[in-house]
Amino acid sequence: MNHKRRLAKLQAALEPNRLDALLAIHLPNIRYLCGFTGSAGALVIAEGKSVFFTDGRYTEQARTEVQGSRVVIARKAPMLAAGEWLAKHAGKLGLKTLGIESEHQTVAERTRLAKILPSGMRLREAPPLVERARMVKDADEIERLRAAVLLGSSLFDVVLKAICPGVTEIEVAAEMEYAARRSGAEGMSFETIIASGTRSALPHGRASESTIPAAGFVVCDFGVILAGYCSDMTRTVHVGRPPDAARHVYQAVREAQQRALDAIRPGASVSEVDGAARKLLRRNGLAEYFTHSTGHGVGLEIHEGPRVAAGQHQLLRPGMVITVEPGVYVPGVGGVRIEDMAVVTERGCEVLTPTTKEMITV
Amino acid sequence: MNHKRRLAKLQAALEPNRLDALLAIHLPNIRYLCGFTGSAGALVIAEGKSVFFTDGRYTEQARTEVQGSRVVIARKAPMLAAGEWLAKHAGKLGLKTLGIESEHQTVAERTRLAKILPSGMRLREAPPLVERARMVKDADEIERLRAAVLLGSSLFDVVLKAICPGVTEIEVAAEMEYAARRSGAEGMSFETIIASGTRSALPHGRASESTIPAAGFVVCDFGVILAGYCSDMTRTVHVGRPPDAARHVYQAVREAQQRALDAIRPGASVSEVDGAARKLLRRNGLAEYFTHSTGHGVGLEIHEGPRVAAGQHQLLRPGMVITVEPGVYVPGVGGVRIEDMAVVTERGCEVLTPTTKEMITV
Repeated sequence: MNHKRRLAKLQAALEPNRLDALLAIHLPNIRYLCGFTGSAGALVIAEGKSVFFTDGRYTEQARTEVQGSRVVIARKAPMLAAGEWLAKHAGKLGLKTLGIESEHQTVAERTRLAKILPSGMRLREAPPLVERARMVKDADEIERLRAAVLLGSSLFDVVLKAICPGVTEIEVAAEMEYAARRSGAEGMSFETIIASGTRSALPHGRASESTIPAAGFVVCDFGVILAGYCSDMTRTVHVGRPPDAARHVYQAVREAQQRALDAIRPGASVSEVDGAARKLLRRNGLAEYFTHSTGHGVGLEIHEGPRVAAGQHQLLRPGMVITVEPGVYVPGVGGVRIEDMAVVTERGCEVLTPTTKEMITV
Repeated sequence: MNHKRRLAKLQAALEPNRLDALLAIHLPNIRYLCGFTGSAGALVIAEGKSVFFTDGRYTEQARTEVQGSRVVIARKAPMLAAGEWLAKHAGKLGLKTLGIESEHQTVAERTRLAKILPSGMRLREAPPLVERARMVKDADEIERLRAAVLLGSSLFDVVLKAICPGVTEIEVAAEMEYAARRSGAEGMSFETIIASGTRSALPHGRASESTIPAAGFVVCDFGVILAGYCSDMTRTVHVGRPPDAARHVYQAVREAQQRALDAIRPGASVSEVDGAARKLLRRNGLAEYFTHSTGHGVGLEIHEGPRVAAGQHQLLRPGMVITVEPGVYVPGVGGVRIEDMAVVTERGCEVLTPTTKEMITV
């Protein structure tokens, strides 16, 4: 991971955004910029200067991990330590406007920070500079995402073996999460969704005590964290012989997902990708049952930019990694979702998820 | 769970705190006040009035779960829907000062909210009214905590079976988490700590790829979430025959933990409890190795009030549930921590964790 280059890029973005410095407190942003993976930190970035603050629990870890920033071990909360450092050095360094991560800093934190800073220093809600940089993954990140996706995908075999009428959804999730842990996953990237029978019509049906019924869909949506990076995939299987209506819905979702993947290319807007899936479902009379957006970015966080949704104008760029996950949910009946992760390439996209999308009957 | 009584108590606290209404956005606070367990919500509480906002994903769930508050399904972010509702009704209801949860609301959220509200309405950083109420558990909550603690405790047997020289810490954690899931846990209440050999000297040594060595301590710190409530326990076992120095440290920590438990009674301050453990360790020449605080409240969140630490003045009250977890960590050598959960009773405390604290050798 080339943290120094990331830091330099951010430093170059300060002045055009009328900031003398940025105070980063969002841990994934801090990890991205300097490599620190612990749970307490604050990072001050100014032109030609970067100082990282953490507490005594992380003395060893910070020294091993942090790159490109000076490390200060503080006796108080890292953000306050950063504030005191600024109070001491801002004048000398000519720092007048400090950008804060307003989507992450709480009102109380802002109040406490403002009390420490010198009166001449102005706090400004900075644009999401680090999040914007994080949208486009570099080669190291894509390798890590690829490894996480492959581990995630390998778990689908465990899920298939575990799904059986009479078994609870939680038992299926437990088998899969156990295999994930034993395969080196640091954790699951979100609460595992195993939604069977009529529960498959719940887009967010996390695994429950419900038992897998003798017939119907089972939506399986899960992901792992590996070396800090998240995977995310969904497959929907059918228990028992699927009736024609179920086949129709499955094939429509599968085709909608392919249309969305086909729409991915540099310069396309995220709303085009979303629209491609929605259009196919509309032709099949299913658009009203597709009640969420088509996808989202994935990286150090399971949900990051860009949002792949109607009304969003972000243009795709090579290196962006997004999910493509249209679904159809008929309340009281059942649902289907199919989800891959894809990286935007120079000419289109590469689907990272290797798992088959043929309809599987168990 | 008597949500209506909790709500009424909070409503009675508004006026003495010079608030006409409170906007709750912290999900554990919302769950506490109205029963909603989903991931998107905002709750407006005024005298004689309470309205809960969520989005379309939670239509069914909100109707089933929410008690004592009117439910509004919004097409936008719940907090903004709450803001628009206030813009419409504040005048009629005479609401002029709105308390916000400043420890939870971000600066950006506050800015967006302020733009919607009528100009006559004042935002004030409210004191942590809900957190204060949550510190003292009612009978229903204590029953749930008891159940979570018993499930957590039962997992220690799984840990004991799994610990063996040559096995990785992650494998031990995986076995235990698998058993937790299969026993009905909704999840682990925090990242499992299995810290063996010299890693046992890291207070936050989450399970790693390190293998259990042939001799030395293994700190096992873990908890489950059951019906929304968290458990938290630590036991330290020794692999191989412990040398005298290890026995000495273990017995000192065990005695320090008992002294802290003995200090728990209504009216005692949390710093007295912390001081009782620290004093015993000081007598044994180990105080400098006890580098964290003695404990914390547990409930819907794994860390909540009160903090059981030096310099804290909170007085204990019947119904508070806290952890008592002194530890000794000798860098480069090893560490010991012993942790129970205890509920403050009318006369002292009841230790909820049933697991033995005898020194166990595996």
